[in-house]
Amino acid sequence: MIVVMKQGATHAQVVNVTARIQQLGCQVHISEGQERTIIGIIGNGRPLDRGTIERMDGVEQTVPVLRPFKLASRDFHPQDSVVPINGVSVGGKRLAVIAGPCAVEDREQLLEAAQAVKGAGAQMLRGGAFKPRPAPYSFQGLGEEGLRILADARRETGLPVVTEVMAPEQIPLVTTYADVLQIGARNMQNYALLHAVGEAQRPVLLKRGMMSTMEELLMSAEYILSHGNDRVILCERGIRTFEQYTRNTLDINAVPLLKQLSHLPVVVDPSHGTGKWELVAAVSRAAVAAGADGLIIEVHPHPSQAMSDGAQSLRPETFARLMADLRAVAQAVGREL
Amino acid sequence: MIVVMKQGATHAQVVNVTARIQQLGCQVHISEGQERTIIGIIGNGRPLDRGTIERMDGVEQTVPVLRPFKLASRDFHPQDSVVPINGVSVGGKRLAVIAGPCAVEDREQLLEAAQAVKGAGAQMLRGGAFKPRPAPYSFQGLGEEGLRILADARRETGLPVVTEVMAPEQIPLVTTYADVLQIGARNMQNYALLHAVGEAQRPVLLKRGMMSTMEELLMSAEYILSHGNDRVILCERGIRTFEQYTRNTLDINAVPLLKQLSHLPVVVDPSHGTGKWELVAAVSRAAVAAGADGLIIEVHPHPSQAMSDGAQSLRPETFARLMADLRAVAQAVGREL
Amino acid sequence: MIVVMKQGATHAQVVNVTARIQQLGCQVHISEGQERTIIGIIGNGRPLDRGTIERMDGVEQTVPVLRPFKLASRDFHPQDSVVPINGVSVGGKRLAVIAGPCAVEDREQLLEAAQAVKGAGAQMLRGGAFKPRPAPYSFQGLGEEGLRILADARRETGLPVVTEVMAPEQIPLVTTYADVLQIGARNMQNYALLHAVGEAQRPVLLKRGMMSTMEELLMSAEYILSHGNDRVILCERGIRTFEQYTRNTLDINAVPLLKQLSHLPVVVDPSHGTGKWELVAAVSRAAVAAGADGLIIEVHPHPSQAMSDGAQSLRPETFARLMADLRAVAQAVGREL
Amino acid sequence: MIVVMKQGATHAQVVNVTARIQQLGCQVHISEGQERTIIGIIGNGRPLDRGTIERMDGVEQTVPVLRPFKLASRDFHPQDSVVPINGVSVGGKRLAVIAGPCAVEDREQLLEAAQAVKGAGAQMLRGGAFKPRPAPYSFQGLGEEGLRILADARRETGLPVVTEVMAPEQIPLVTTYADVLQIGARNMQNYALLHAVGEAQRPVLLKRGMMSTMEELLMSAEYILSHGNDRVILCERGIRTFEQYTRNTLDINAVPLLKQLSHLPVVVDPSHGTGKWELVAAVSRAAVAAGADGLIIEVHPHPSQAMSDGAQSLRPETFARLMADLRAVAQAVGREL
Repeated sequence: MIVVMKQGATHAQVVNVTARIQQLGCQVHISEGQERTIIGIIGNGRPLDRGTIERMDGVEQTVPVLRPFKLASRDFHPQDSVVPINGVSVGGKRLAVIAGPCAVEDREQLLEAAQAVKGAGAQMLRGGAFKPRPAPYSFQGLGEEGLRILADARRETGLPVVTEVMAPEQIPLVTTYADVLQIGARNMQNYALLHAVGEAQRPVLLKRGMMSTMEELLMSAEYILSHGNDRVILCERGIRTFEQYTRNTLDINAVPLLKQLSHLPVVVDPSHGTGKWELVAAVSRAAVAAGADGLIIEVHPHPSQAMSDGAQSLRPETFARLMADLRAVAQAVGREL
Repeated sequence: MIVVMKQGATHAQVVNVTARIQQLGCQVHISEGQERTIIGIIGNGRPLDRGTIERMDGVEQTVPVLRPFKLASRDFHPQDSVVPINGVSVGGKRLAVIAGPCAVEDREQLLEAAQAVKGAGAQMLRGGAFKPRPAPYSFQGLGEEGLRILADARRETGLPVVTEVMAPEQIPLVTTYADVLQIGARNMQNYALLHAVGEAQRPVLLKRGMMSTMEELLMSAEYILSHGNDRVILCERGIRTFEQYTRNTLDINAVPLLKQLSHLPVVVDPSHGTGKWELVAAVSRAAVAAGADGLIIEVHPHPSQAMSDGAQSLRPETFARLMADLRAVAQAVGREL
Repeated sequence: MIVVMKQGATHAQVVNVTARIQQLGCQVHISEGQERTIIGIIGNGRPLDRGTIERMDGVEQTVPVLRPFKLASRDFHPQDSVVPINGVSVGGKRLAVIAGPCAVEDREQLLEAAQAVKGAGAQMLRGGAFKPRPAPYSFQGLGEEGLRILADARRETGLPVVTEVMAPEQIPLVTTYADVLQIGARNMQNYALLHAVGEAQRPVLLKRGMMSTMEELLMSAEYILSHGNDRVILCERGIRTFEQYTRNTLDINAVPLLKQLSHLPVVVDPSHGTGKWELVAAVSRAAVAAGADGLIIEVHPHPSQAMSDGAQSLRPETFARLMADLRAVAQAVGREL
Repeated sequence: MIVVMKQGATHAQVVNVTARIQQLGCQVHISEGQERTIIGIIGNGRPLDRGTIERMDGVEQTVPVLRPFKLASRDFHPQDSVVPINGVSVGGKRLAVIAGPCAVEDREQLLEAAQAVKGAGAQMLRGGAFKPRPAPYSFQGLGEEGLRILADARRETGLPVVTEVMAPEQIPLVTTYADVLQIGARNMQNYALLHAVGEAQRPVLLKRGMMSTMEELLMSAEYILSHGNDRVILCERGIRTFEQYTRNTLDINAVPLLKQLSHLPVVVDPSHGTGKWELVAAVSRAAVAAGADGLIIEVHPHPSQAMSDGAQSLRPETFARLMADLRAVAQAVGREL
């Protein structure tokens, strides 16, 4: 960390800051410029709270130098991590496509969706049994019955199942049925939940919060990693901006930048990232071209009957066509699908 | 809800949409313009998923007409709600000031802070025992020991205690010690937690998410209200924008608008809303002038020793001067402090 | 436009609003719901100011139904527009790549850049002679000398020249030298300038403002089109968000959505859209895969000597490799390069 | 400026960066930490382009240390600047209220508005003759006729006139009639215009762009100051966020922070800052309580007949009541009105 002193800071103020830093177990390196004194902090490994230094007299600002995540960083793990999931791998040369409906609505709907996405070449099945919905009056998911239907679909199709978990106490139940635990965007900084999935025996698909920076996403991944679970998949699903024609703004920059900063696999959710099914194909192709390790796409056998997110769900035949297109793009960038 | 058909939508498409709406139990009202047909939906009380309609052929967009919250709305509860908390009221003519440190660090720090803020005229004490911290390596709070210290401070000062709860399973413990359960900004859409505090026997201070709209804040309040707890206090604490000189952008518009849309009391957090102690006094005065029902302010006896948020904490003497200033502003707008 | 009356609006209020709308030359269509009355406005072709209606007693909100742009809309011009520029076309099957340095610094630098990008297959040359710089003390461009150097480079390479114009009075001069007039992001709503380029005899490359919606971009295009210039190329160059690891957030959703809403060609600027040269290749591939009609990329022979934007400029050899990669992606999505 | 080298940067890379900095006329100060080398740059007064350094091998990031503005900075001008305008002062103890309609529509409307705002105690008159409108089909203002009407209103009421100028070539004409030249939000980074008003003989009211940081606002002020005009008034008018219930989000933090960073007076525009007349009174009171030096408020004799911005305009009687309320708040914070 670097401390920038105010213009006109006194010698006594510089001495006080220096003493405080040393008291916290760090060394200092002082550089006097024409207008300002700069104090470099050479750390002892423990993070300092910037606020306590910024609060001292004569300090103008502090500037962090090191990234605040370690286990998630490529600096400490140069090779790509590959997450194995019952025969499927996320993070290798072969792209992983996860598809299925927003919510499990009933057995017939899910099995129809599962057969369709498998037929089109998807490697995993998605579907929500516990649904985070902004309004308390909306459909909240089938709960355990939904999980049972998901497990049946896996038995029939062989596709591993990805499903959301919303609270620590749901983890034992969800783990019984699911192959991958999904942390939704609204829970990306639900630290009790991150801690709990960090101790669970399942890979985790961690969605970026709609209000979160890439650094915060990586720090939330760090939470999971630091509690012992190293099977973390990052998911870019769009951020909130002022734009109103789309539900979110998919941050395509995040794909190459997360791959550069971290060794963890990155998948993209073009369904939430756009909110409009007409845009899903174009943005899916873009994500693959940008280097994503996979996609998670909403597919519903009858979107206009869907209980949630019908506007962004693909019909099975549209999804099948998209998979064909994606194969061509994957090949063009040296990947497989 | 209103459905806007695409230019050139066919008669058959209009008929299909109409039939689908009627199948969902609603009535329609069709209006044919020069360029587009508009279908008004006259509801049956249950919310429709906009996506399922938007997904139908020929539909351009849907437009919601009613606000998606009811219990939180002033339409359904024209009088201001006043939340009583062990002798203090939030929402009446008298303003409520909640003050104290970001985190409970030890008994001495908290009691010193509690005595100071009581001396300056604060009506409630804040302090975190469970701290949501973006990095897993940061100080996470003292947990139950912190709660015990808070209860001791209440015994010594008589100030009711506001403290954060981060997970449903913490509620029984926190309820034992605290007077008000705080839901932090990062948990504003943690629905499992909202559901659980909706069933708890304590008032709830609900902080707006840092990238949540006012509508979403009111929908999260609706969650709590709909589970039986009508003692909800809304808190504006700043939103995330592109501005980098401040930690957040305090949304002062939210104060009069939330008061207009809802009957619930509104308090403002100028400490998180700015991230800089030098701005706290000015923004506190602004909040009172705009009609806030109270403030929640970070005060630490020794900010440059604080374990978190030192940069935004006031010293006790600065807080005391601020209270005097706030009294003058309160009086100027017909309130008391 | 639709007018939503407040719950409890009186009959007299509805009558007043109706009368006002008719006085403005429009017809009304009234729909009475359970909770609110909705008034549909059937227009006479002239736009209404929403504010004047919203200001009337009993009105809760107004909702626009028609898009506010016409000449730019695909509804009124279903076929893709193709903009011809001295032998190059933007908007057809063949992608157009515009490349060159941020600013013209001297003859040697520009000619070296021009030869390099031509050798790699670029079809047009970019380079700024008038530079909009946030600080008055920064390099502001070479002005007319820069334009002369650009014209020399065109003579040597045959590449048409794209360069920025910042004020109406510069247009005659810039038109003498340049093939395409670029409107920068900061001037997207400089209406005096839009009006002037609308009357100029050159194609216009219109960059999206860094905090402008797609609708606003299309309305700025409408300004130019409505003044008689139909050779407009839209450019997505990243928007401003809370993310701090990148200079802007490239809005990849804009590519398919602008193509859907409008007939105008869409090019993408991955250099400004990311601010980091390491991300330019991935985001360029993504843009092509998403359906962009072209790219505008900063290339500098010696980026670490550049007078501006060195961090986002590619070296010529990196650009040449990228062009090869883009050819593969273009082919995978049925385009040529 | 500080240069942070990548972890594992080689000695040769550090030497190269050092040499390049020295070549640019600056000195270096090297600090080797456990994980990274930090290079401090001790400047020669001229600004360095960060990009050229960031582009060098082994560099991770650069961090600016000095603020990029000087003439606008309080560091270089500790006393508050007071801008005199024909008998009115902006920036002193007495608050300045500027009021009037969005646009000059006709003589009768403007004179009625002018008399009303004067009667209520406003010190200056606002009104647009040249209107920047997002749609080319909207009312664009009366032009010179509007300026003449404004001058007539000044003659009748004695109120100095504030009006917008949109292009350099309008300046001579507008200067003939107006007392203060307003730069609108969309032109905050129209550098040709900033340069031109910097050479004009009139005070300038500079509105913050809806997409601009406080630093960028101060740099635009620096443009004007550096061309010789030291009578600059800053105006906070709301920024664009994801919130949809309000037109903009008024950044109340900007008031105390701009006053801290700069000596220039700060006025607030609650009309554009909210977009809703019902919120204008509360936000005006907040602005005064936060320390603003003045307000600019839209007042129209008949808002529901207004040709633009009717939704955010106050009726004269509402404005008169607001002025009375503001006097009380001003007094409570040691100001006068």
